[in-house]
Amino acid sequence: MQNSPKKHAVIVGAGFAGLEAAKILAREDLDLTVVDSHNYHLFQPLLYQVASAALSPADIATPVRAVLRGLPSTEVLMATVEKIDPVARSVQLDRGQSLTYDYLVLATGARHSYFNHPEWEPLAPGLKNLEDATEIRRRILTAFEVAERVEDPAARDPLLTFVIVGGGPTGIELAGAISELSRYAISNDFNHINTKSATVILVEAGPRILAAGPETLSAKAHKQLEKLGVKIRLNQRVTAIRADGVEIGTDFLAARTVIWAAGVQPSPLGNDLGTPLDKGGRVLVAPDLSVPGHPEVYVCGDLAAVPWKGGIVPGQAPGAMQEGRHAARNILRQIRGMPTAPFKYTDKGSMATIGRAMAVAEFKGLIMQGRLAWIAWLVVHIFYLIGFRNRLLVLIQWAWSYLTFQRGTRLITGGPDRARVAHPGA
Amino acid sequence: MQNSPKKHAVIVGAGFAGLEAAKILAREDLDLTVVDSHNYHLFQPLLYQVASAALSPADIATPVRAVLRGLPSTEVLMATVEKIDPVARSVQLDRGQSLTYDYLVLATGARHSYFNHPEWEPLAPGLKNLEDATEIRRRILTAFEVAERVEDPAARDPLLTFVIVGGGPTGIELAGAISELSRYAISNDFNHINTKSATVILVEAGPRILAAGPETLSAKAHKQLEKLGVKIRLNQRVTAIRADGVEIGTDFLAARTVIWAAGVQPSPLGNDLGTPLDKGGRVLVAPDLSVPGHPEVYVCGDLAAVPWKGGIVPGQAPGAMQEGRHAARNILRQIRGMPTAPFKYTDKGSMATIGRAMAVAEFKGLIMQGRLAWIAWLVVHIFYLIGFRNRLLVLIQWAWSYLTFQRGTRLITGGPDRARVAHPGA
Repeated sequence: MQNSPKKHAVIVGAGFAGLEAAKILAREDLDLTVVDSHNYHLFQPLLYQVASAALSPADIATPVRAVLRGLPSTEVLMATVEKIDPVARSVQLDRGQSLTYDYLVLATGARHSYFNHPEWEPLAPGLKNLEDATEIRRRILTAFEVAERVEDPAARDPLLTFVIVGGGPTGIELAGAISELSRYAISNDFNHINTKSATVILVEAGPRILAAGPETLSAKAHKQLEKLGVKIRLNQRVTAIRADGVEIGTDFLAARTVIWAAGVQPSPLGNDLGTPLDKGGRVLVAPDLSVPGHPEVYVCGDLAAVPWKGGIVPGQAPGAMQEGRHAARNILRQIRGMPTAPFKYTDKGSMATIGRAMAVAEFKGLIMQGRLAWIAWLVVHIFYLIGFRNRLLVLIQWAWSYLTFQRGTRLITGGPDRARVAHPGA
Repeated sequence: MQNSPKKHAVIVGAGFAGLEAAKILAREDLDLTVVDSHNYHLFQPLLYQVASAALSPADIATPVRAVLRGLPSTEVLMATVEKIDPVARSVQLDRGQSLTYDYLVLATGARHSYFNHPEWEPLAPGLKNLEDATEIRRRILTAFEVAERVEDPAARDPLLTFVIVGGGPTGIELAGAISELSRYAISNDFNHINTKSATVILVEAGPRILAAGPETLSAKAHKQLEKLGVKIRLNQRVTAIRADGVEIGTDFLAARTVIWAAGVQPSPLGNDLGTPLDKGGRVLVAPDLSVPGHPEVYVCGDLAAVPWKGGIVPGQAPGAMQEGRHAARNILRQIRGMPTAPFKYTDKGSMATIGRAMAVAEFKGLIMQGRLAWIAWLVVHIFYLIGFRNRLLVLIQWAWSYLTFQRGTRLITGGPDRARVAHPGA
C-alpha cells in the first residue's frame, strides 16, 4: 500500500519481537508496514492475571497504532495474513489485499498445541490472548457461582476442582493464582460453599515443573505451590479430556474447569517459507536470523528456532525482544550495504510469581525465592509494561490487591453460548 | 434455599433499585436472597464510556457478593429467573431450582425495545450491559481499522459514518463520545484516513433531544453537540435498519455502524404478577410501590410505573435507588406490623456529558452548561461509583484522558463470528 522509492519493510505480528523490530525501523528512512490480526500489543507474561481476575484486559494491552503513532512512513494494518510468497516477496492479507516487501520480519508466534487432539480445545482452553483470558476467568468464576447453588457434594466437588495441564511458567502461575483467589479474595463472599476447600491440581508430564529452568528453581517453586495448597502430579500424562474431567491413564480427575498450559505450536505461516522447520514446527533460521536462501526474510520470536546452549532460545519475552531488535538492525545493515551480524542471545534469567509475596527467580545462576524474588518480579514487570498509564494503573491494582486480598475484575462476561473465536495465524 | 423461622425476602435484580433495597434489608433480622443473572452490579450511567473506549468494564462493575459480603443471613445467587408465582409466593430459577418468599422485591429493569423489529437488534446493538458495551466498542474501533485499509471513498465513507438512533441521555452521550474519539484520541494514529472527517449522526423521532428534560436543556445540549460536529436530525423516524445503513422514509444514511438508543421495554417478568401494566409494559404499582392485591410484592426501578407530575418517575438511577430503599423500608414496616408509607420521589435533576469539559445539567429549574456542568457531572458520578478502588481508578483514567486526549481501553476483542448473548429477563 506504500508507493515510494524507499525500501519497504513489512513486519507481520506485533508481539514482543515484532514491536521491538518496528520501534527501530520506524525511526529510519524506509517505509514500514506493521500487520497484526489484533489492534493491540499484548503483554503476555501478565495474561494469567487477567485470567485470574486481578487485572483488566486494557491493563496489559496497548493499541499498536498508539505505540507507533505520528510516523508518516509507518503504517499499521489490522489484518489477517493468509499466505506469504517469499519468491514474489508478497504477503497475502484478508479482504483480497496484498503487500509486497523488500524486507520481511515474520514474528507471528505460537498458539496452543493439543498434540493432535483438537477436540480438547473447547474443553480445556489455553491462555494465549485476551479472549482466552476472559474465557478462563469466566469459567473459574462461574464454577464458584454454580457450586454455591448445588447442594449435592458429588456434583459440587468437581465444580470446585481446577485442573491445570502443564507445569511451565503459565501453568504454575495460573495454579498459584487460582489457589490464592479461592483462599483469600473470595473466601468471605459465599454462604453455602467454603471456597478454601477448592482443589487446584497441576498435572505435569515430565519429572519436574519449570523444566526449562535449573533444578533448584523447580524444587523451590514446587514447595511454594504446595504451601499454597496446589496438588502437583509429576510424570503423569493426560490421556483424555472430557466435559466432566481429565483422564490420566486409568486415573480420573473429576473437574469442571480444565485449563491447558501444556504445549505450543508455532504459527502455520512458517510453512510458506519453503525452508526446513525443526520438529516443533519452528523455522530453522540462519545465525543472522534470516531464512536460508532468503536473506531479505527474518523470523523472530516463538516462530524461530534459534540455537542456544544445545537447545534453542526459550520462548519468552526477553529472547523475542532481542531477536526483533537484531533482525531490524540487520535489515538496516543490508540497506546500507553492510554484512549482517550473527545473533547472540543474552540470558536474562527467568522468574515466575506463585502468589502473594511468593515467587522464584533465577539470574546468572543465582536463585531467589519468596518476597525478594516477588519484588524483583514486580519491578521487572512494571518496567516492561508499555506506557506510563498502564504501569501506574497496574501498580495501583496490585497495591490494592496486596493490601486488601481482593481482586479487581471479578466479572463474569460473555457466556457459554458465545462461540469461541477462531485464532488466525497472524 | 434458606430455612429458618425468620421472614425470607427475595430481591430479583441487583441494579440500582435492587442493590439499595438489599443494603437495607441485609442489616435487618431476616433472611435475604438476592438473585441476578450477572455476578456484578453495573454502574449503567457510565456504560457509554466503556462503549467509547474510555473505561474498562471492571471500572464500572462490582461483584454483587463483594458488596454484600460477610452477612450470614444474606445469600447472593447468580441465576436466571424464569417465572414468578405470586400466589404460591415462589420464584422459579434456572437449573430447576426455586425459592419461596415472604416478601419479594422485583427490580429486573428494562432491555431495548426495537418497536416490533427484532431483526434490527444484530444490526444496531443497544447499550444496556457490559457485553453490549464491548460489542459497540468493537464495532466502532473496527470501522476505523477497516476504513484505513479501504481506498475507494464510496466504500470508505460508510465506514466512517456512525448513526445513533435516539436522542435521550444515552444517545447524546454516545454521539458526543464517538465524535470526540474521532477528533482527538485517535486523530494522529492513522495514515490513510482522516478520522476527523468521521460523521456522527444523531436521529431523533421527536422535536428535540433530551425530551424528558426542560426545553432550555435540550437547546443547550443541541448546540454543544453541533459544536462537536454531531449532525442532529430531529422529527425523523427510522423506518428500516439494514447492514449498509439506515432508512428514514425515502432518505437513506449509508453507515456501517448503527447504535440503538431509542426505546426500552421492561423485563417480561412483570407479566407474571397478574396485575395491570401501563402501555409501555411497566407494572402499575400502588402508592407504597407494592403490587395491587399483593402487599408482599414490591416493584421498583425501570420495571415500575410510579406516577409523578402527570407522567412517571424517570427511568434513571436516582429514582430507582429511592424506590429500592423505600420498598425495603416498607417491608420492614410490614414485618413490624406497621402500615406501609406511600413513596414520594425527590427529583435530583438531570445531567449529561457531551464531551471534554462539555455537559448540561438541570437541578431544581437551574440550568448549567459547559465546564461547570461537566465538573458537577464528574463529582456526582465519582461519588456514586461504588467502591474506593473503582473511584480512584476511574478518576486516574479520566484525568489521563483529559490531559492527554487519549483513551485507555482501545481494544478490539471478541469478533463478528462471536454470537451475541441472549438477554434473559432477570
